[in-house]
Amino acid sequence: MKRVVIVGGTHGNELSGVYLYRLWQTPPASWKHYPFKIETYLANPGAVKANRRYLDQDLNRSFLNSDLANLELETYEAQRAKVLAREFQGAELLFDLHNTTANMGITLIFSQSDSLNDPLIQQLCLYLVQTHQVKIYNHPVPAETNPYLPSAAQREVTVEVGPLAHGTLNADVFFKTQAMMLDALEIVAQWQSGQAPAQQGDLIVYEHLDNVDYPRTEQGHLAGMVHPGLQDQDFCELKPGDPLFIDFDGKTIAYAGSESVWPVFINEQAYYEKHFAMSLCRKRVIRF
Amino acid sequence: MKRVVIVGGTHGNELSGVYLYRLWQTPPASWKHYPFKIETYLANPGAVKANRRYLDQDLNRSFLNSDLANLELETYEAQRAKVLAREFQGAELLFDLHNTTANMGITLIFSQSDSLNDPLIQQLCLYLVQTHQVKIYNHPVPAETNPYLPSAAQREVTVEVGPLAHGTLNADVFFKTQAMMLDALEIVAQWQSGQAPAQQGDLIVYEHLDNVDYPRTEQGHLAGMVHPGLQDQDFCELKPGDPLFIDFDGKTIAYAGSESVWPVFINEQAYYEKHFAMSLCRKRVIRF
Repeated sequence: MKRVVIVGGTHGNELSGVYLYRLWQTPPASWKHYPFKIETYLANPGAVKANRRYLDQDLNRSFLNSDLANLELETYEAQRAKVLAREFQGAELLFDLHNTTANMGITLIFSQSDSLNDPLIQQLCLYLVQTHQVKIYNHPVPAETNPYLPSAAQREVTVEVGPLAHGTLNADVFFKTQAMMLDALEIVAQWQSGQAPAQQGDLIVYEHLDNVDYPRTEQGHLAGMVHPGLQDQDFCELKPGDPLFIDFDGKTIAYAGSESVWPVFINEQAYYEKHFAMSLCRKRVIRF
Repeated sequence: MKRVVIVGGTHGNELSGVYLYRLWQTPPASWKHYPFKIETYLANPGAVKANRRYLDQDLNRSFLNSDLANLELETYEAQRAKVLAREFQGAELLFDLHNTTANMGITLIFSQSDSLNDPLIQQLCLYLVQTHQVKIYNHPVPAETNPYLPSAAQREVTVEVGPLAHGTLNADVFFKTQAMMLDALEIVAQWQSGQAPAQQGDLIVYEHLDNVDYPRTEQGHLAGMVHPGLQDQDFCELKPGDPLFIDFDGKTIAYAGSESVWPVFINEQAYYEKHFAMSLCRKRVIRF
């Protein structure tokens, strides 16, 4: 492994990654001794300047291979995706740093179908779950329909940290993300040198099932909110019949599914426009 | 008093007011018996549609009398301010509903220089402090330089409720705001009918002193964040020497003032662009 890429500012108002990128323009001393080069990128400088998620379209949905090959696409992010995809080409590992308004703690998301079969990713997850209490969210997408930025590298880790209001910095969130990333790079370096102690144990993985929209009026406005009992309860079990939403008159809408699920991205600001109130997961345990 | 105005969506991504406006298009039954008419407005429909604070400029800084009189101003919000100012003309009381990412609870802000000398406002504040734990933030601005939307009515109350990520709804915040507003209107109705019980007691008022910016680099980027010990501590005492900011290397920057202050709007998202990390207040007690 020769190149590890760290990306901040894929969404311009998710500021932990933007300011870690700026901080790391002076690379930490330890990085000099690693057996790979670390490259840092500010993915969407236009959106960062505007302190918005994006200018024209979501950069993190702009990496479909067919879109990268299409020279007629006109948006800012379509150009930026082509620029970045060329830069990332051949990189063996990419970390993409995000924030959520949802109470996700530190969550690692994987979108490539075979990520969790990769021995390095397995070791990294086991270590970070144990030492940084990260959660693992697996949402595999076939390569030809994968629109996410990290899919442009050979191995990808999307890092989500919250809760944090978009467009703000929070010192606890910032330093927690920094510490986790520095440790992650250390593990990758040890693994590369054959010195990583083999982690063992149970890895809890949240497997993506489905997205759920808010209740809506005929005009498309919200007809309800996430139930107060479910707000901030990301990665907690939701049983059939549990409160899911509450309408503006105070009436509870229960979860009508037939089996327990584990919701994530609950009431995430960025997903209002995508019509997701939350994503539902199944819980799976992988034993190593 | 003949007309009471309630405004939501002055900032398009502060959703409690937007959805209370929508809910109240079917007026609560009690409103029919009040000795005044209640009018509701969605202040910035363009920004609401875009789920952004504003399209071209902050609508809540667009009500300078000289700007309202200037027909050459070109922005969307300059037009909207003129439209709304005409609608509000002659209204005796206006409530403007906002949200904050800062941990402000329910805060009532007054910008007219004589608001707190008004017997109705006094009674309203005493009642709402006791029953809804609201905070009173007084930030008087001379009438000729007052740019705020509520200044277009005879009496004004800006209602801020947080913490809430902009662009999201939270059921607890929504219902807390609704309950406070319904009680406030009831008190106004009783006062108007001469039936309001005279509230007595001490009213704690936070008097605006100054705004404080984040530490910044030469390029204008942030050089630090609100200190974790101060984050979410709105309306708490900050003493000389207490931690104020923390830089990205973890070094604390202390508050260098010579007297205690009470910060508000701590780390408010909407004020990053205005270069305010927080506003500092003095605490004053008015005895009634």
